[in-house]
Amino acid sequence: MSKNGYPLESGVLYRDSEYKPPISWRSWLVGRPLSTADAPHQTIGKAIGLAVFASDALSSTAYATQEILVILAAAGTVAFGYAFPISIAIVALLAIVTISYEQTIHAYPGGGGAYIVARDNLGEIPAQTAGAALLTDYVLTVAVSISSGVAQLVSAYPALFPFRVYIAVGMVLFVMLINLRGVKESGFTFAIPTYFFLVMMFLMVGVGFVRYLSGNLGTVVDPPEMSLLHTAGPVTLFLILHAFSSGTTALTGVEAISNGITAFREPRSRNAGLTLIWMASILGVLFLSITFLSGRIGAVPSEAETVISQLSRTAFGARNLLYLMMISATTVILMMAANTAFADFPRLSALVAGDGFLPRQLTFRGSRLVYSRGIITLGVIASMLIILFQASVTGLIPLYAIGVFLSFTLSQTGMARRWRKSGHMKPGEEIKEQGSILRHDPRWFLKMVVNGLGACCTVVVMFVFAATKFRDGAWIVLVLMPALVLIFFSIHRHYKSVAHNLTLENFGSLPQIRRQRVILLISSVHRGTLHALNYAMSLSDDVTAVHVSIDPADATKVQAKWERWGNGRRLVILDSPYRLLVEPLIEYIELIANRRQAGEVITVIVPHFVTDSSLTGVLHANTAYWLRKALVPQKGIVIIEVPYQIED
Amino acid sequence: MSKNGYPLESGVLYRDSEYKPPISWRSWLVGRPLSTADAPHQTIGKAIGLAVFASDALSSTAYATQEILVILAAAGTVAFGYAFPISIAIVALLAIVTISYEQTIHAYPGGGGAYIVARDNLGEIPAQTAGAALLTDYVLTVAVSISSGVAQLVSAYPALFPFRVYIAVGMVLFVMLINLRGVKESGFTFAIPTYFFLVMMFLMVGVGFVRYLSGNLGTVVDPPEMSLLHTAGPVTLFLILHAFSSGTTALTGVEAISNGITAFREPRSRNAGLTLIWMASILGVLFLSITFLSGRIGAVPSEAETVISQLSRTAFGARNLLYLMMISATTVILMMAANTAFADFPRLSALVAGDGFLPRQLTFRGSRLVYSRGIITLGVIASMLIILFQASVTGLIPLYAIGVFLSFTLSQTGMARRWRKSGHMKPGEEIKEQGSILRHDPRWFLKMVVNGLGACCTVVVMFVFAATKFRDGAWIVLVLMPALVLIFFSIHRHYKSVAHNLTLENFGSLPQIRRQRVILLISSVHRGTLHALNYAMSLSDDVTAVHVSIDPADATKVQAKWERWGNGRRLVILDSPYRLLVEPLIEYIELIANRRQAGEVITVIVPHFVTDSSLTGVLHANTAYWLRKALVPQKGIVIIEVPYQIED
Repeated sequence: MSKNGYPLESGVLYRDSEYKPPISWRSWLVGRPLSTADAPHQTIGKAIGLAVFASDALSSTAYATQEILVILAAAGTVAFGYAFPISIAIVALLAIVTISYEQTIHAYPGGGGAYIVARDNLGEIPAQTAGAALLTDYVLTVAVSISSGVAQLVSAYPALFPFRVYIAVGMVLFVMLINLRGVKESGFTFAIPTYFFLVMMFLMVGVGFVRYLSGNLGTVVDPPEMSLLHTAGPVTLFLILHAFSSGTTALTGVEAISNGITAFREPRSRNAGLTLIWMASILGVLFLSITFLSGRIGAVPSEAETVISQLSRTAFGARNLLYLMMISATTVILMMAANTAFADFPRLSALVAGDGFLPRQLTFRGSRLVYSRGIITLGVIASMLIILFQASVTGLIPLYAIGVFLSFTLSQTGMARRWRKSGHMKPGEEIKEQGSILRHDPRWFLKMVVNGLGACCTVVVMFVFAATKFRDGAWIVLVLMPALVLIFFSIHRHYKSVAHNLTLENFGSLPQIRRQRVILLISSVHRGTLHALNYAMSLSDDVTAVHVSIDPADATKVQAKWERWGNGRRLVILDSPYRLLVEPLIEYIELIANRRQAGEVITVIVPHFVTDSSLTGVLHANTAYWLRKALVPQKGIVIIEVPYQIED
Repeated sequence: MSKNGYPLESGVLYRDSEYKPPISWRSWLVGRPLSTADAPHQTIGKAIGLAVFASDALSSTAYATQEILVILAAAGTVAFGYAFPISIAIVALLAIVTISYEQTIHAYPGGGGAYIVARDNLGEIPAQTAGAALLTDYVLTVAVSISSGVAQLVSAYPALFPFRVYIAVGMVLFVMLINLRGVKESGFTFAIPTYFFLVMMFLMVGVGFVRYLSGNLGTVVDPPEMSLLHTAGPVTLFLILHAFSSGTTALTGVEAISNGITAFREPRSRNAGLTLIWMASILGVLFLSITFLSGRIGAVPSEAETVISQLSRTAFGARNLLYLMMISATTVILMMAANTAFADFPRLSALVAGDGFLPRQLTFRGSRLVYSRGIITLGVIASMLIILFQASVTGLIPLYAIGVFLSFTLSQTGMARRWRKSGHMKPGEEIKEQGSILRHDPRWFLKMVVNGLGACCTVVVMFVFAATKFRDGAWIVLVLMPALVLIFFSIHRHYKSVAHNLTLENFGSLPQIRRQRVILLISSVHRGTLHALNYAMSLSDDVTAVHVSIDPADATKVQAKWERWGNGRRLVILDSPYRLLVEPLIEYIELIANRRQAGEVITVIVPHFVTDSSLTGVLHANTAYWLRKALVPQKGIVIIEVPYQIED
């Protein structure tokens, strides 16, 4: 081994540690490249942990109430009274899911997202289903959060309404760029907006309650025009369930902590578990309060002004500074939620790709140590969704949450199964798994029941969601999800077949190549041709020059020149009455290939001018490209382009 | 030489004459491939010649009058009275141009387009200017003719107005497809629509005059809304010249016969000359008649209904069958005019490309023996122009005709110079030129004066056109033309420099390649790697395997496996802290290249999986592509992709 420089003998070459990759427009945009050794290793406490992981869950309070009202509006404003009971049911569901996940966190101290839990305990198909569900959901988290963020902005500045799609796409690209740079904030950066949002939220809700109790809260002044999703009808069970489904989006993001346990300070699981309980409690309180107060002030669902905006200006008395602070805090927390998805999507897709179910390229880390390809994929798909749905939260919601509940269900089922297995183990026995260690747990039965109950609840909610929102757009996800799982498995099959073809197990040795038969393609005889001939002769004594003749006069010229310059090598002229270049060549090469003896390889050499400027490339025919395309599936044929550099 | 089969010894291989190229979707669309031997050699007489070459010139009667009126409209309908005197001036100009071209036809029996005449008599810059002018003009012929054709259709069926751009682009693609098939009509096919148009035109004009003289022609019933190009103002000299410029579009297409002399039966020049005179006479008579009658009936210029349509329904009394026949004849002749451009543009661009001023590929004839690339280029550019100008003839006209008059001027100037040269020669002396033979002509002075006068007239018209229509769009052409000439010359410089680099004149011999240093790139050790190693060892004993290490664990694995399978060849591991793949490799290869001895060539081998489906290609990294891009400008380095086929 040598420290610097590049010796020609075997060994590992360490590159100079001072090596700096070149600066380009890309490094200006996303920052200078980072060395693999630069990867940070820091852990965070509960307060910062809450800030880092809670934005996704907490930010859903910005739209969940409104989405319940939008559905109830179909039965008139009288039906708005059902919103509060519905949100109590949703908070009960939140409690169940939270307890389930708290158990998961303790069982998987190395990180227990739905994908890993399903993979360890349920098998490949459930794992890939969870993967597809989560990836779909991350895309929707970005689209919904950013759209809702823009809706808040538009509420404060209605003049922005016509530009909402542009603003939303701009925000997605901004968050994408931040992530391509690789966010290496101390967690502190996250704490400011999250706690600012919490302070503003509790202030608004507090002021609202005080004014409500003192009887001078009043109703929304100058309410916006109500958006109606369906034509008016009576209050039916279907409508209540439909509204309930919309409200369950409040639960999105609850799983975030279970993915990020490793980021916590020791005792990890305890810290993460407590943070989860805190987060769920805050979420529950805020969601219930907002729904309750919205009902009191007569807030209406509208594309022009969000319920949060109506509540905020009613509680604070006018569109004053506090109102503007509330709106900005909400917009920022929603962007943070999108940012969370930008951290999760690339990480999960790298995990799935590492297992061989997505293109391997997703596991490569870019110049800034982040999974750039995953980040860009997410940004592009989310932007497309926003454009397609014109940045409407109500339009996007039916696609959201199915994935969340599917992954909840798979994760809880996996955990229930794991507890059962644990119950059947002897005390002291241990099974090491990829992400955790399975031991006998004396309280396995209780834990199994908790997770089993969680799974039952979430699966029921999932079906309710799919049924009530099928026509609104949930069908898209119901078609997409199995399609994604199918694609994942066909990618996996491809990689397995490649690996099978490439394995060296029980592999003897290849037959030695005894003879190189070289075919040199020439269009005319010039220095470039001779250069290629020179190269051809260095490979083998068996060189045949081949010229495809479109113009007989040219052929005669080539023959005469070859006599003089061809070093005595064979020249074959292929007459091409249909003025085709590649086809006669392929036919000839295939004929020779068929007569090949054992240990014989055919090498086709194509001389290739190279000019300084890539612009001039279009002025020359690109025969090698077409030849390669046609001959590459043939065994035992190699195509070489021998470049000849021309000073322009 | 052997008749069939492909022997391995030197010689010419005649392909089986029964050989049929495979049928594909392309041959379904444009017809089965034609052999070079299938090229037709037929000549035509005067009557068919008129039909074949006159459509471009005659069809301009369909819009020339209207374009004069559009300009005069700026001074109110009173100014329409100037249209007839203006058209008399234009017909006088037509007479001068015709006499000039008649002389050219006799001097260039092998075809005397402006490009050839300028090249032979004026030099490279004027020749390329003529080439650029003509090519631009052919594009505009297609755009203007098709737009005018659609305007006729829209006049008859106003409901089509919103679809005019689609119809126009559809027509361009239709004519393009016809030309890609290769029109091998007997000329007879051309005769039908041309003579049908002439019959209808003379019928309309005849009926019009009879009714006018008998005093019952009347005026246009229900005239369309007038289009105004400029705001109202007085009749100024500028306005008159402006209107005159628009009318000169009547002259476009007059040069067609001089390009196609070889198509005529012997005595070629005489037949072609007479056909030209006939064509010009018909054109003059029709143009004057239409302008005169339009004035009588009070026709107004309009985007909604063409002047031809107004005249036709007034002369024939109503929108009856005769009217519809007139409209369809006009539409068809306009499509024929576009078709003429589709014959001329590819032929001229092949000629220019053959001289090395346009990409060589334009000289290749496609499967149907036509210059397919030129045809497609023309179709695409003309369609883009039509879309840009929304199929408006009035919008396109300011771009048209400058090119025509520029090429007229260059052609006449060239001829004048040629006569002068001829006058200075001794009787009996001969100078052989590319396209003709130059002899002493006793009447050289008269002929020089005729062509000189023609040149003076057309150059003045060109400047008038450029000045009066500068702001309407002529500036585009005035910018485009020099730019095109510049591009032509830089292409030429490139080809000359390539030829200079490639020439074998005074060329000694290349130094023999004494040593192949082979670098084998490996990402891991598998069957594909061994396959490539096998190939590498068949090239040289000096093989170095190189692995770029992004993950140290991988590097250890590769080292261990190489020990077992590497056949004792060197393995170099390049540590890549910034997770780059191509850059460290390039650095390493360049280092080795710099230490290279004389007669040593570096060959880089990249193993490459090949799967059955091209879809799966995205699942594998394409290292070879990036390597090739980076290393191809380096002398003495050859990159080989060794394919390894995998059954999927």
